[in-house]
Amino acid sequence: MNERPSPATPVPAAQQEREAEVTRQVLASFDGCADPRLREIMQSLVRHLHAFVREVRLTEDEWSQGIGFLARAGQITDERRQEFILLSDVLGASMQTVAVNNEAYGDATEATVFGPFFMENSPEIGQGGDLSFGAPGEPCWVEGSVRDVDGKPVAGARIEVWEADEDGLYDTQYGDDRTAARAHLYSDAEGRYRFWGLTPTPYPIPHDGPVGALLAAVGRSPMRASHLHFMVSAPAQRTLVTHIFVRDDELLGQDCVFGVKESLVKDFLHQRAGTPTPDGRDLGDRSWSRVRFDIVLAPQGT
Amino acid sequence: MNERPSPATPVPAAQQEREAEVTRQVLASFDGCADPRLREIMQSLVRHLHAFVREVRLTEDEWSQGIGFLARAGQITDERRQEFILLSDVLGASMQTVAVNNEAYGDATEATVFGPFFMENSPEIGQGGDLSFGAPGEPCWVEGSVRDVDGKPVAGARIEVWEADEDGLYDTQYGDDRTAARAHLYSDAEGRYRFWGLTPTPYPIPHDGPVGALLAAVGRSPMRASHLHFMVSAPAQRTLVTHIFVRDDELLGQDCVFGVKESLVKDFLHQRAGTPTPDGRDLGDRSWSRVRFDIVLAPQGT
Repeated sequence: MNERPSPATPVPAAQQEREAEVTRQVLASFDGCADPRLREIMQSLVRHLHAFVREVRLTEDEWSQGIGFLARAGQITDERRQEFILLSDVLGASMQTVAVNNEAYGDATEATVFGPFFMENSPEIGQGGDLSFGAPGEPCWVEGSVRDVDGKPVAGARIEVWEADEDGLYDTQYGDDRTAARAHLYSDAEGRYRFWGLTPTPYPIPHDGPVGALLAAVGRSPMRASHLHFMVSAPAQRTLVTHIFVRDDELLGQDCVFGVKESLVKDFLHQRAGTPTPDGRDLGDRSWSRVRFDIVLAPQGT
Repeated sequence: MNERPSPATPVPAAQQEREAEVTRQVLASFDGCADPRLREIMQSLVRHLHAFVREVRLTEDEWSQGIGFLARAGQITDERRQEFILLSDVLGASMQTVAVNNEAYGDATEATVFGPFFMENSPEIGQGGDLSFGAPGEPCWVEGSVRDVDGKPVAGARIEVWEADEDGLYDTQYGDDRTAARAHLYSDAEGRYRFWGLTPTPYPIPHDGPVGALLAAVGRSPMRASHLHFMVSAPAQRTLVTHIFVRDDELLGQDCVFGVKESLVKDFLHQRAGTPTPDGRDLGDRSWSRVRFDIVLAPQGT
């Protein structure tokens, strides 16, 4: 276990060959894998992992720190906290995967990161329903349409929506069994949808664990730009996982998971207290906001 | 979330550019890192991680499986079980790190993987002592010398030794507080050492967790070639982490962590019951073995 050679030190040819031989041996160990896709993935992973170790001349102490980091990420992960998704997110691996799997198709709505806070079995709300279920925050009227790339309305699309409350926390972060600020609804016969949510506010990703420590060490902020999560699925359409962001949010340019795309930045129109609501709901002395998000789904398999 | 495109599908230039832009954004996020070494490591990691995702066209379902794998590895990891070291080992990342950090130097003894079973604070034994502490197995007399690359004896070198018992288990795998089949001793004034250990036997790495499942999925064996671990340290010398392997072990060619090197394969000489022992120890009706391992340490900083 020696000290790291200066990056300027050239690696002798015989040493390069010894290192290449390690990679060859490991690649060959996957030759017998019966599943060709799994073999392709594992061999590519090994090539890139080994190339990384060689390129930075990773020291044994640094390797050990990396192992310790992964162990700490594992220790903090449970059913409600997924540190490995956070890690993938802050390294941009999540957005790279999103990019690879959601090629631009006509004017289909762009995708962005899934994040660690989606939960199966969200409550269903009807058109115009309220997904807050008591979560604190300014009410936000969200409406729009779901269409395919030919402009045809998509009826019965399942629209999952989830968001943080005004304290910057998702329901799953409270450590009790509450379900709030999440729901699903279905587009109507004309492909339209509308519901009450909360005006999105900026929040930090959970940063009391190893991923937060990593961000601090590299001088990066744990803040996410304000957003509202959507997952929209319908037969014969590519499932869309995306967010909408709030125009003029100062964090748009420094979102810690690289999720912002210009096409997803929307005008959340502030409404003073007393402004009549679209559905006649009485909000008393509370201000509210409204936003329109028209969704275009790409065909499945694109 | 679409289906994986066939590998033959060329990626359009505009799509390639979108994917490259994700990587550029992520790399730029580390530009402000005050620690240049950490910045170098993180940016290299990001480049290789993103290249892997793009190269295999990782699907969102595969990404999710990968995240689940890491979470399971985290869940099974505790103070006595380190699944991430196993993962690094079976992917050859450990041996690649060993290769990078232990360049050949004169006739210095070659290094190999550290493994997950080393424990700090092993008991000290004297010259000729027995490290088994009751662990089952055939006694093995181990002797040799510690020298530097100029052939000069290294006195007082700390020699840590640890191994599995004949049931293929390290003490830490029993779930109680036993300490057995591990110890440390110091080379004498002439650089010599000798002790009683156990004849190494083959064993599987712990394969009841996600790493075992991965090996099964790719058709690889979890077995390790029989070996005895050494870590040898002395002032002004590069610390040596290595094993010795047993000649004619049929697993030498298929060690699951790629640790075998020809120079580390030694003759363990079988001794019938009743054969006089080097130190006069009475082993009754038990057979035993003996092996010689002469260690050469490279200078620190090489």
